[in-house]
Amino acid sequence: MNQGDTSTEFPTPPPLRAKRLRLHTQHQPVVIMRTDCHVCRSEGLASRSQVLVSSGGREVQATLFQIEGDDLLAIDQIALTETAWQILRLEEDAAVAVTHAPTLESLASVRRKIYGNRLDSHAVESIVKDVAARRYTDVHLAAFLTASAALPLDEQETVDLTGAMVEVGERLRWDSPIVMDKHCIGGLPGNRTTPIVVAIVAAHGLVIPKTSSRAITSPAGTADAMETLAPVDLDISTLRRVVEAEGGCIAWGGAMHLSPADDIFIRIERELDVDTEGQLIASVLSKKIAAGSTHVVIDIPVGPTAKVRSEASARHFAERISAVASHFGLLATCLLTDGSQPVGRGIGPALEALDVLAVLQDAPGAPDDLRRRAATLAGAALEIGGKVASGEGTTAALASLANGRAWQKFQAICEAQGGLRNPPNASNVHPLISPRAGRIVHINNRKLGRLAKLAGAPEAKAAGVFMNVSLGQEIDKGQVMLDIHAETSGELAYALEYAQRSQDIIEVEFSS
Amino acid sequence: MNQGDTSTEFPTPPPLRAKRLRLHTQHQPVVIMRTDCHVCRSEGLASRSQVLVSSGGREVQATLFQIEGDDLLAIDQIALTETAWQILRLEEDAAVAVTHAPTLESLASVRRKIYGNRLDSHAVESIVKDVAARRYTDVHLAAFLTASAALPLDEQETVDLTGAMVEVGERLRWDSPIVMDKHCIGGLPGNRTTPIVVAIVAAHGLVIPKTSSRAITSPAGTADAMETLAPVDLDISTLRRVVEAEGGCIAWGGAMHLSPADDIFIRIERELDVDTEGQLIASVLSKKIAAGSTHVVIDIPVGPTAKVRSEASARHFAERISAVASHFGLLATCLLTDGSQPVGRGIGPALEALDVLAVLQDAPGAPDDLRRRAATLAGAALEIGGKVASGEGTTAALASLANGRAWQKFQAICEAQGGLRNPPNASNVHPLISPRAGRIVHINNRKLGRLAKLAGAPEAKAAGVFMNVSLGQEIDKGQVMLDIHAETSGELAYALEYAQRSQDIIEVEFSS
Repeated sequence: MNQGDTSTEFPTPPPLRAKRLRLHTQHQPVVIMRTDCHVCRSEGLASRSQVLVSSGGREVQATLFQIEGDDLLAIDQIALTETAWQILRLEEDAAVAVTHAPTLESLASVRRKIYGNRLDSHAVESIVKDVAARRYTDVHLAAFLTASAALPLDEQETVDLTGAMVEVGERLRWDSPIVMDKHCIGGLPGNRTTPIVVAIVAAHGLVIPKTSSRAITSPAGTADAMETLAPVDLDISTLRRVVEAEGGCIAWGGAMHLSPADDIFIRIERELDVDTEGQLIASVLSKKIAAGSTHVVIDIPVGPTAKVRSEASARHFAERISAVASHFGLLATCLLTDGSQPVGRGIGPALEALDVLAVLQDAPGAPDDLRRRAATLAGAALEIGGKVASGEGTTAALASLANGRAWQKFQAICEAQGGLRNPPNASNVHPLISPRAGRIVHINNRKLGRLAKLAGAPEAKAAGVFMNVSLGQEIDKGQVMLDIHAETSGELAYALEYAQRSQDIIEVEFSS
Repeated sequence: MNQGDTSTEFPTPPPLRAKRLRLHTQHQPVVIMRTDCHVCRSEGLASRSQVLVSSGGREVQATLFQIEGDDLLAIDQIALTETAWQILRLEEDAAVAVTHAPTLESLASVRRKIYGNRLDSHAVESIVKDVAARRYTDVHLAAFLTASAALPLDEQETVDLTGAMVEVGERLRWDSPIVMDKHCIGGLPGNRTTPIVVAIVAAHGLVIPKTSSRAITSPAGTADAMETLAPVDLDISTLRRVVEAEGGCIAWGGAMHLSPADDIFIRIERELDVDTEGQLIASVLSKKIAAGSTHVVIDIPVGPTAKVRSEASARHFAERISAVASHFGLLATCLLTDGSQPVGRGIGPALEALDVLAVLQDAPGAPDDLRRRAATLAGAALEIGGKVASGEGTTAALASLANGRAWQKFQAICEAQGGLRNPPNASNVHPLISPRAGRIVHINNRKLGRLAKLAGAPEAKAAGVFMNVSLGQEIDKGQVMLDIHAETSGELAYALEYAQRSQDIIEVEFSS
């Protein structure tokens, strides 16, 4: 039982043949192997083992699920999900080698963070590299994000996380000395100012290559809404061509691989429905820095049910994000805005796009709150971009909406991105009626957002909520407060069930 | 676009036909559906959606993966993994209905915990119920466990968690007024006292229906080691029969469903490699309470690389676990023991079982440290169980080892459990040689544990580490410090690669 004389050279097991499953598991690479295949036996692999799968000089780490019997796989076959298949760029029957995945040293840093220690820059870099390389399981990703929420990242950790997220992605560079950007930290349904701001700013001759995200926990991101008006899934060369021609664009950032680690974090945050300050700052800034921006105007809506609930925490957030940005030579200007109720009338990709069109076209009945917010933000950009004198930005912005220059610019940008189109309509629309006469005293943004999501937004582009009332308004019993829009009857039923359970989405107080 | 007149009654989509995949995904139920099937389209389902799957009055929540094309599934088929298949007790082609999974209210409590709030008993109950019903995804489970590690549970939260975990499981009841139990909080490789303690205690006429877990983060749990000597996968009626006949048993607790939520938590803790005090206490006590125990002796090894590193934190843990136990009428007696180095010579299921046999058989060369620890713990049980006077327990325990009564009882218990058998041998054994002459000044328990795990333990029963040296010993250059045992050459190579990278598993200091 003691001294052994086994050789230290071990034969590599013969490879397996690849089988494409066309199975979609999102970011998570999965492979399926036979419990009785020679690799599982010789390597001692079990279901949920993390394995290193390699073929033709490429490799990917994947979760192994094991299967019994020969219905799906021959004994020498391995089935791969789309994510794994595409990373390895496989062809049917290609030779694939599978071994135990190597120990991830960076998980020790995640554990140290969980136990209350701060992370140094090297630790943060290693974590982000492993995440971007898809080596973290859902469990590891959720643990890192939860630890960063429960024990918030300090400023230096946030700087390190931002830098590490930029490092693992693509990076854009522009000739212009000023590259403007705009961001809203979210939490306010319908606050779809970006397309309007880009149109105004580009119409004034500033460069604004705007990349936006899809929804994280909200019923629509800018990319989701914009996609109902024009293609947003641009590659880097198309984006460059659009910006060189028109000065601005409104593209989906995810197609750009500007911050691939963030694209993975965002999916997990969505499943958890948790936002954390450090992650949020790193998420926002890593994409701005990677996009080559020099200036950014940040909209921070403040309200009891917005993402930021008090002016004090908004100011704290503004200071923190400006400080982190300055580490990277980026000038961030934060505007605290009213976050007490939804902006515009639509909540959901297509419904928000319709509000945007109304403002740009200066249509009668265009939502004035959306117009004013967009003009304020665009005005700030014009001022820090040196296009108008201090204090004159908002007026200049409103003028370009009134005289049609912004609308012309928007159409030109859409055409350059692949063509302006009409947002889709929902086939299932159902009103929500006021149970009594009275005054609207409170609107719960979070519950409205959830209602729109249950109706199918953002995946279902036409789904969401269309508001018929606003704060302070007097309404009659039986008056329609909002309409729920859904693409399928199942989703409409799901949203209605939630609306019936939650009586406080819109609160109406008796007026005597 | 405003008022709609859609009916509020919605037809349920026609069911799908079940297809068994024989795919193993552990605790996580997964279903696979065609992207273009009518249910995915009408319900607006996407990959990674959480869905409610029902058939014949049973239901299970599952993660949906979507597949393209008709290679695996016809348009009206749904494929289910083993976990989902078994919960629904399906037959091939059974009718299965799929809808959106309902909103999990308990996740709001998890988020509140992440943001620093304590959980009340109702919140803890809801979380544990949803976990036991397998409604939590890996992301949700990891978030709850990470939050409970980063922001530790207080005593009342731990009491509530323990009680909730007992509530969702099976519960054993015994006629005897004293039902003894024993637990080691782990972290010390090779500390396999349980089979010896049970044999001694039962030989003295106390009732000790011992249920043990498999390894969480260690290379072997008691159930893993005991399984190499006798069947441990007993159902409740077999366990009752064994205990009625012999007074004691050593069974795997997982087969008993005493704490099904804990069985799920443990898998995630294993993937995270994180232990937390509150979870640990709830995990230990929920199983003791559910097993019907009235008294428990708890072994807390203390050492620089054990799970508990200082006497102060051991005392804190002892106080906390005794306090929580007393809420449930359970008397917990904690013993702080030496945790500076492995116990016995074997680390890994079969290698530890061989140490146990040597002690029980009073064999020449049986590890004396294991014998003394087991006798101390058994002695404490004999004393609190009223079988011997205070201070005489250890002597009585050692006597029953020397006179063969414990060995006779152990054989009788193994026969009652299904038959005593010989532990397996590893086919790949490789020595680790000392690079220099000197004295052993430090042994890193954690790294030894990892080495044994990389060699394949606990899944590979014969795998692990066999120690040839102990703390303080003088050794020569080239002397064998330990042997690595593996069942496969791949696992041996994996362990050796780790041993070569980590030079500080066993530290040898020059003696001049």
